[in-house]
Amino acid sequence: MLKGNLVFGQSGGPTAVINSSAAGLLNAALASPVIDNVYAAEHGIVGILNDRLFDIGQEDPEELRLLTQTPSSIFGSCRHKLADFNEDDSEYLRILEIFKKHNIRYFFYNGGNDTMDTCHKISQFMQRKGYECRVVGIPKTIDNDLCGTDHCPGFGSAAKYVASSFMEVKLDSQVYNYPQIIIVEVMGRHAGWLAASSVLASYKGAGPDLIYLPERTFSMEQFERDVRAVHEKKGDVMICVSEGCQDKNGRFIPEMSENSELKTDAFGHKQLGGAADTLASFVKEKFSIKVRAIEFSLLQRCAAHIASPVDVNEAYAAGETALKFSLDGYSDFMVGFKRVSNEPYKIEIIRVPLGVCANLEKTLPEEWINKAGNFVLDPFIDYTLPLIQGQTIRSEEDGLPHFADLKKILVV
Amino acid sequence: MLKGNLVFGQSGGPTAVINSSAAGLLNAALASPVIDNVYAAEHGIVGILNDRLFDIGQEDPEELRLLTQTPSSIFGSCRHKLADFNEDDSEYLRILEIFKKHNIRYFFYNGGNDTMDTCHKISQFMQRKGYECRVVGIPKTIDNDLCGTDHCPGFGSAAKYVASSFMEVKLDSQVYNYPQIIIVEVMGRHAGWLAASSVLASYKGAGPDLIYLPERTFSMEQFERDVRAVHEKKGDVMICVSEGCQDKNGRFIPEMSENSELKTDAFGHKQLGGAADTLASFVKEKFSIKVRAIEFSLLQRCAAHIASPVDVNEAYAAGETALKFSLDGYSDFMVGFKRVSNEPYKIEIIRVPLGVCANLEKTLPEEWINKAGNFVLDPFIDYTLPLIQGQTIRSEEDGLPHFADLKKILVV
Repeated sequence: MLKGNLVFGQSGGPTAVINSSAAGLLNAALASPVIDNVYAAEHGIVGILNDRLFDIGQEDPEELRLLTQTPSSIFGSCRHKLADFNEDDSEYLRILEIFKKHNIRYFFYNGGNDTMDTCHKISQFMQRKGYECRVVGIPKTIDNDLCGTDHCPGFGSAAKYVASSFMEVKLDSQVYNYPQIIIVEVMGRHAGWLAASSVLASYKGAGPDLIYLPERTFSMEQFERDVRAVHEKKGDVMICVSEGCQDKNGRFIPEMSENSELKTDAFGHKQLGGAADTLASFVKEKFSIKVRAIEFSLLQRCAAHIASPVDVNEAYAAGETALKFSLDGYSDFMVGFKRVSNEPYKIEIIRVPLGVCANLEKTLPEEWINKAGNFVLDPFIDYTLPLIQGQTIRSEEDGLPHFADLKKILVV
Repeated sequence: MLKGNLVFGQSGGPTAVINSSAAGLLNAALASPVIDNVYAAEHGIVGILNDRLFDIGQEDPEELRLLTQTPSSIFGSCRHKLADFNEDDSEYLRILEIFKKHNIRYFFYNGGNDTMDTCHKISQFMQRKGYECRVVGIPKTIDNDLCGTDHCPGFGSAAKYVASSFMEVKLDSQVYNYPQIIIVEVMGRHAGWLAASSVLASYKGAGPDLIYLPERTFSMEQFERDVRAVHEKKGDVMICVSEGCQDKNGRFIPEMSENSELKTDAFGHKQLGGAADTLASFVKEKFSIKVRAIEFSLLQRCAAHIASPVDVNEAYAAGETALKFSLDGYSDFMVGFKRVSNEPYKIEIIRVPLGVCANLEKTLPEEWINKAGNFVLDPFIDYTLPLIQGQTIRSEEDGLPHFADLKKILVV
């Protein structure tokens, strides 16, 4: 038994369920006789460096319960990357100092690839210094691009939002008696999992005709041919484009204009708009029909009101099980999901060595993308459908989301 | 008793609940012994002119029930405006011909201001020609700008979407340890009701600091002063801007650039982006902090997954009661809502003469906007909260929306 205190931190871009993992971990830790005090760092590792820790033991249990329906990162996030400690160990020494000051023996860090890298480095450094501390990564990312796990908490909810919103927009776009081209941009700078989720809408008969993923090289000429072929056949065209699509020269779509001196907006700045806006301009030039660009923007990662209950529960279990494993003596791992069966859907929570998942990116399998590189195949549907099942019944207040309201009392 | 057939049409921009009004009307009409056949026109009045009517009697009742959770306009919409029949009665004569051909004695048209104008003209023309036909308008608009009714079906659901999404985006925008400016654009070309709904998020502690409505003249200089004041006080700034805001010269925000020759995008076209993008560019130039523009776009009017049950039920009742009134012998009216009491919330369904509501626009009362013209006051909150209560429990299929699938069999 390693007695002592625990600190939890959140890192990277928020999701609809990262706070559910927090709730799973923190509730289990509060109930554990082995853990003396339960803390959460403000803005992840930055909060540890700044000695800004919140005392979770002073929070109202009901508010902690509400974390399961509160999107975003309640304790604040960061994008701080630690140096290699062989080159510069100053921040590691500061972390060690804070860990010693607060007798931190359990460190949990919730995030994506970069976060697992940070975890791994801290774990190695603590071992080198002979400071006993169990270091555990908890995955989260709407991008679903972490290695060593079947899928990531956050992805199912974002996929449910994307697929449902595509279906609704599709119906909306079909009401008039003239054809329209709708281009929707979905997040995912390096992997196409979330953009691919739009195929679930197509599977239900109300989704995109064309889906472009960062896994394949984007060509404006091929895009034009694809759109023309669908338009000639069906009139309406609905397109999903990942923000991460790049051409053979590695340029993102907004950088593909031939006329780059015009790439400024009304105030002389480089355009804020992304891939969908650029493609819409291109299509407008080539086709004389109505074109609309839509960006799901932050909504796709923070829409807790349509979170997948499967995802919320798995995120909670990931946090809870992360503690259990660490109390069992394990360290230097990330919790991950292993899919034991698909029908009925069943997972096991496993330990993945941090070295396996740090800094690596898992992209969509080649064979799940069609040959033309403009659509997604059935195996992806089989993979994703179990992750979006059910409806979240939230407790509302005044007909609006009821979010957790934490006191966030600093540890002195 | 006026025996005969009934035709229903949908017009204008879709909403999350216009099909719920269709369900209310069509189910009641199918059950009525006075109505022989129940039809729906494809693309509203255009479908009548083209003799494209669907036979609702051949639809599966379960699919008609699903209309209450199916957004957009299931029968297709149009933006066709009829001429003044004193100048050109050719289309009216065609409508009369179709009405006679199918023995249409009940005509229901579901839409906004323009739709009520069309209704009124058809009603007058039929009277002039001595053709007995009861003509009824059913209101719908997310803009909530119809006169003669306390509020419009469609508004409550859009307001719930806007307020909830603001709350979620607010949480998302606060996670990092640096300030951000978020500018969100909301629909409403002439009236600010929907943009004003963002104040419900502020009421719950997670909404915009500044709200700009078309009811007040927009000034870029004042906007800059407002943003600076909030930024200096709080760091983060969240802004809601209505797409309908205009300056003293009647220019919309995207037209307010000093540098209009740059108002082209990467492909040399006039920018697609709207008010939020333009303001974001402006703010980026003036403040050296992170700025993000978000447009809710079509999502705000078609997001049936977060429809307000109050709105869904009122839309249904509007359709159902429209039939009842017409069977009672009334014609040339729009159904409207009269708020009898606010606590508890209670409405009555009333008849509004079509002449009262055709082509008029109801804007937000002056006294519901603050003096500075950049925020919304409590009476608006009292007015809107009852309209967004509750959570819609939809029947899902595969974890995704289950929309009505109609056969749409043409009447020959």
